[in-house]
Amino acid sequence: MKISALMTSAGINIGICVLLWSLYSVLRKQPAFVRVYFGRRIAEENRLLREAFILERFVPSTGWIVKALQCTEEELLAAAGLDAVAFNRMLVFSIRIFSLAAILCLFGILPVHYFGRKMHRLEISSEQLHMFTVGNVEVQSRWLWVHSIVLYIISGVACFLLYVEYGHIARLRLLHLKRATLNPGQFTVLVRGIPKTANESCSSDVDDFFTKYHASSYLFHQVVYKAGKVQKIMTGAKKACGMSGPSTDTTLDQRCKAVTYPCCLCGASSDSFQLLPTDEVAKNIDKKFWNYLQECAAAFVFFKTRYGALVASEALQTSNPTKWVTDLAPEPDDVYWSNIWLPYKQLWIRRIATVLGSLVFLVLFVVPVAFIQGLSQLDQLQKKLPFLDGLLKKPYMSQIITGYLPSVILLLFLYTVSPIMILFSTMEGPTSHSERKKSACSKVLHFYIWNVFFVSLASGAVINQLNPSSSTKDIAVRLAHVIPEQTTFFITYVLTSGWASLSSELMQLFGLIYNFIIKYVLRMKEDIAFVPTFPYHTEIPKVMLFGLLGFSCSVLAPLILPFLLVYFFLGYVVYRNQLLNVYRMRYDSGGLYWPIVHNTVIFSLVLTQVICFGVFGLKESPVAAGFTIPPIFFILSFHQYCRTRFLPLFKTFPSQDLIDLDREDQRSGRMEHIHHGLRSAYRQFPDNEDIKLEQILTVGNDEDQDEGCSSGERNGEETCKEQEPRRDLCHSTLKGLPVSRLRDSVRSIALLWTAEKRSGDRALIN
Amino acid sequence: MKISALMTSAGINIGICVLLWSLYSVLRKQPAFVRVYFGRRIAEENRLLREAFILERFVPSTGWIVKALQCTEEELLAAAGLDAVAFNRMLVFSIRIFSLAAILCLFGILPVHYFGRKMHRLEISSEQLHMFTVGNVEVQSRWLWVHSIVLYIISGVACFLLYVEYGHIARLRLLHLKRATLNPGQFTVLVRGIPKTANESCSSDVDDFFTKYHASSYLFHQVVYKAGKVQKIMTGAKKACGMSGPSTDTTLDQRCKAVTYPCCLCGASSDSFQLLPTDEVAKNIDKKFWNYLQECAAAFVFFKTRYGALVASEALQTSNPTKWVTDLAPEPDDVYWSNIWLPYKQLWIRRIATVLGSLVFLVLFVVPVAFIQGLSQLDQLQKKLPFLDGLLKKPYMSQIITGYLPSVILLLFLYTVSPIMILFSTMEGPTSHSERKKSACSKVLHFYIWNVFFVSLASGAVINQLNPSSSTKDIAVRLAHVIPEQTTFFITYVLTSGWASLSSELMQLFGLIYNFIIKYVLRMKEDIAFVPTFPYHTEIPKVMLFGLLGFSCSVLAPLILPFLLVYFFLGYVVYRNQLLNVYRMRYDSGGLYWPIVHNTVIFSLVLTQVICFGVFGLKESPVAAGFTIPPIFFILSFHQYCRTRFLPLFKTFPSQDLIDLDREDQRSGRMEHIHHGLRSAYRQFPDNEDIKLEQILTVGNDEDQDEGCSSGERNGEETCKEQEPRRDLCHSTLKGLPVSRLRDSVRSIALLWTAEKRSGDRALIN
Repeated sequence: MKISALMTSAGINIGICVLLWSLYSVLRKQPAFVRVYFGRRIAEENRLLREAFILERFVPSTGWIVKALQCTEEELLAAAGLDAVAFNRMLVFSIRIFSLAAILCLFGILPVHYFGRKMHRLEISSEQLHMFTVGNVEVQSRWLWVHSIVLYIISGVACFLLYVEYGHIARLRLLHLKRATLNPGQFTVLVRGIPKTANESCSSDVDDFFTKYHASSYLFHQVVYKAGKVQKIMTGAKKACGMSGPSTDTTLDQRCKAVTYPCCLCGASSDSFQLLPTDEVAKNIDKKFWNYLQECAAAFVFFKTRYGALVASEALQTSNPTKWVTDLAPEPDDVYWSNIWLPYKQLWIRRIATVLGSLVFLVLFVVPVAFIQGLSQLDQLQKKLPFLDGLLKKPYMSQIITGYLPSVILLLFLYTVSPIMILFSTMEGPTSHSERKKSACSKVLHFYIWNVFFVSLASGAVINQLNPSSSTKDIAVRLAHVIPEQTTFFITYVLTSGWASLSSELMQLFGLIYNFIIKYVLRMKEDIAFVPTFPYHTEIPKVMLFGLLGFSCSVLAPLILPFLLVYFFLGYVVYRNQLLNVYRMRYDSGGLYWPIVHNTVIFSLVLTQVICFGVFGLKESPVAAGFTIPPIFFILSFHQYCRTRFLPLFKTFPSQDLIDLDREDQRSGRMEHIHHGLRSAYRQFPDNEDIKLEQILTVGNDEDQDEGCSSGERNGEETCKEQEPRRDLCHSTLKGLPVSRLRDSVRSIALLWTAEKRSGDRALIN
Repeated sequence: MKISALMTSAGINIGICVLLWSLYSVLRKQPAFVRVYFGRRIAEENRLLREAFILERFVPSTGWIVKALQCTEEELLAAAGLDAVAFNRMLVFSIRIFSLAAILCLFGILPVHYFGRKMHRLEISSEQLHMFTVGNVEVQSRWLWVHSIVLYIISGVACFLLYVEYGHIARLRLLHLKRATLNPGQFTVLVRGIPKTANESCSSDVDDFFTKYHASSYLFHQVVYKAGKVQKIMTGAKKACGMSGPSTDTTLDQRCKAVTYPCCLCGASSDSFQLLPTDEVAKNIDKKFWNYLQECAAAFVFFKTRYGALVASEALQTSNPTKWVTDLAPEPDDVYWSNIWLPYKQLWIRRIATVLGSLVFLVLFVVPVAFIQGLSQLDQLQKKLPFLDGLLKKPYMSQIITGYLPSVILLLFLYTVSPIMILFSTMEGPTSHSERKKSACSKVLHFYIWNVFFVSLASGAVINQLNPSSSTKDIAVRLAHVIPEQTTFFITYVLTSGWASLSSELMQLFGLIYNFIIKYVLRMKEDIAFVPTFPYHTEIPKVMLFGLLGFSCSVLAPLILPFLLVYFFLGYVVYRNQLLNVYRMRYDSGGLYWPIVHNTVIFSLVLTQVICFGVFGLKESPVAAGFTIPPIFFILSFHQYCRTRFLPLFKTFPSQDLIDLDREDQRSGRMEHIHHGLRSAYRQFPDNEDIKLEQILTVGNDEDQDEGCSSGERNGEETCKEQEPRRDLCHSTLKGLPVSRLRDSVRSIALLWTAEKRSGDRALIN
């Protein structure tokens, strides 16, 4: 590819970027799209952002960039959680290391490459890109020491920065732990694989087990119901109700007032549900609900102290490791309810099936990638398929096809990856949303590294028809052959997949279209509860792939670095803006993405050295090749050090801190309040039915276990107030009842419950 | 190689075996060698095995075989520990699966191979071995379904047997845990990485930390001293003393009586130590000892209950994972004292250095293996080195060189492996003997699989000059090419390394020679305390390598199976005999070798399928090749299942069982006794000095922490009695003192100690 073709591609992308960014800066000021661009702030900060009509609204502006840059880490942490901070640090790390790499490589290595061979020089614009890669350096060149030194500096500084960042995230994680004092997940253990006993109910089994073996710290428990069918019915009901939900469009702070909204038949066709007035809906669902509740497969067990919960979660409970499996419970909002009742014994086979599925997908995806590579290696293709000649004779056509089309097609194919991977991760059976996303993140990352990086290289090699003698040599040499050749593709990939996709992320094209359809085509009410969470599972792999490209190409084809650097700068602005304004933090993994990032960077660094080893070997410079070996060991040793020094903090919590927290809470008397809050923290059926169930459970438990703690009435009122914000979909049913009547009904069912409970729970449940 | 060459090799080996076994059955009846052949029984069962001179002593007999076979698993467990049982199960598993494989392959597959091609048949003895391998089957043969079915049966049965065995060992491990009620390791946690504080002594740091964070279960602690120089001095002193040690040759049960043995200058030259009368030796060492004791780097912390210790050992203590690192302590006899004070921060770098070292060793070892392969491929070698012609013209010579010499040389080279690997494992810094041996075991196993199996194959392939086109194909095809070719070498390897080394193991050649030199050349007294422990780190890899050979060759070259089966039968008899009579169980890992065995078998099974995939591919039978894919996934799924079902039991202990044990001990009042025993369980300096130190520590602690528990006197007496058997090297010094004087001196030092302790421990220590 010539420089001019590259410039064509860059031009197209810069044009698209400028257009979309300007459009964004206008659209974000339009009240109609306020839900698209300020979803988080509306949902969490409850601001009214409606403004009057002024001309300024239609002039592109840059104020939002300044705002995004000015936001401190503290603010980001408060607004978007620790994961967002980890993501932000990843971008900061990339900017730092690639700024250094760009300076070193552009001023140190690029001249060595360009003047590597004595030859006739063309005008710079029609110079082949190949001129700027290591391919242009003569065999046995003495200038390879420059490459070695730059490699050493980049590896060393990258390790240093990684160390600093790892420490920083670990510190933040501990701080996060200490600050989240009212976090029910810290007191709760999720028990799975509860063995079935013939005589007693599952609930009393759990009670017996934990009073016997964890008597000193056990508080109470809450059983999870196997709710396959119930879940389906509830979802159907939710959908139906949701359409006739509250129309709190402009009045956002009317929550907690007992207002009855009329329920009307809406335009959507619904075969399975005939919509009835809300009371009947409730009754109808209620009946089915009680019919379908099945015996439990898991339970949440609550402990008196954080340390007690930690100890119970870490120990192997019985001599059969697939029974009474304990883990620290995820946060209430993080719980992935539809997986939580899965039999623990199934999980291993699900995991295998998922791995198999991902592998098959990985392999099948080679086809489109190879096809794309065929396009980018047009001159080779032309030789084999001569009928393309006519089309490709036109120079402009050829430039577009080699420079722009391949990466656009790849980008479109890649859009299918993350939904499929998240499907796989769901099948795997994680118990929390964040775990599911994290698992999808690693899957997508593996996919990107394998399919975009390696397969691109491999197919490039196949099309280039490398001489067969090299095929017996090792992989490093093969990579070394192909990397400089493939740089052009990678540069265009950075331009399209990087720059353009950042712009589309900023524009929120999908959100915009969805909003438009909902509002103007279907003429439905906007769903204020639906604010998306940040797609870490697609964005982290994307950024990490660019990091890998950057490291592996830096020394060999430094021309990629300025494009990458621009990408990271843009990404820094865009992602901060999106995290602050668009996405909502419903759950947080507590920085667990960082170890993935760390490992990927280490992998990239090692791979870079291996590739350079091959390249220097090809250039017949054994000294330079030999110099790439020590850094590999240094990097791996550094990795091992980080594993011992930081990784344990991301697997568990230090007991010292937990005990200190427990003691402080006990001293200050906050503990009772926390214990009280635990009773209503986890709710399997977050709609009306489960409120009744919850109340029943709570009152029942109160009477059973700690009578003195709180009366049913106070409890009823408090949960009603506290959990109001979450129940925004279908709460008309409950709100229709006056609070006093609600309390009466709850109390009567509670009495029934406690009476029944003593004669065995299952009688009532079935 | 021809059948006759194989028979030559087999003949030589059978001859050697018969000779050595007969020799053994005679030698074992000679009183002079009783220490060599009955080390364990003398040391542990204190039997007197001296018999009168009768002719029967010089007649070979087979009674010992019957005895070895009759011994039940219970007896083996009692005599040699759980590791021995695991080892025994490994042999049983091998016998079972290879009996089945031998029947199936010899009657099902061998005829298919032999009649695979229509050709002129020679006499069976001059038939090439190649005729019996899959190489003789025609391309696109329809008979490959026999191979597929046999493979399926072998894989399925192997997995079933593995499952049964894993479950069995896991059950035994739990039983072992429950039976070992007085096991101090269960109550003890080894703390490393204790941070240095400026003000206080390390001991009070430990005390503060555990009383603060584990107050409910913390009992007391014992500091480990950094004893680099001390250790050296002690070792020197021990050596010097040991030579003049007690001459309890015939009177084995004179222990615990206060007899003074005269100390005399012995024949060995000693530059660093001038041997003095024992009192002065003691004083001398004493002085140096106190001078060199340095501040602690680690500590043993004792807990009230097993569960308390488990909880403390599993939790991450502080926010810095390299500080206050807790692990369950090894058994007192298992502690590897010279590593225990190593700074925890060093360990990661030691681990890396060891891995690097092993890798380098692994690679360098390729040279001798390749050389050996050159010998076994003599006809190929002959073509290249024509000057060998004269030597190799003699048919008998050629048969010995191809059939016998290569594996003998390999065997000799392999003798260097295990000492080097155990050296690496020591450098790695394990805190217990069993851990060190386990780590060496995996290293040796990797080494064997890589160097004996893969490099043998690879060098065979290189010498065979495989056609270059195959080099671009994948590894399975390469293996497929070579395996049938290399079978002859593997068969001779089984004969020499297997049969002959078993015989030499039975004969205890090294022990015999050592014993002879000590007794008749150096004329020294026999060292009754020195009874070797079973070398699991060399024997397990050996047996597993034969397993790998068996699985991978079974279908392709079934002729190896009868030889292997004989090896396993012989091994079963020999190892049981040795475990019962020769080796002593000083420490026991509690069956931790089994997961290694399991993983290796799984690896072997998968590799077998991969090789068969390649072979069937070469035979252009896509159906048969396709049929090898599903078992791979099945085996890996099975492995994953075993990991979830059994592996956790080998990593930690189930808390339910521990709590039950604790409760029973508390109910029966045994707990106090156990706590009392803990005080003297771990002793860093197991000779005279440390007894004083121990007493001081114990008395001091008694007065500090639980005055009512036991008086210093009773304690003194008890430890003296209990620990007598261990102190057999240099106890003349202490024994010289009457018990009353000893007590007085201990008490006076104890008073000093407690007085000093309050003003800071270090004052006394320095």
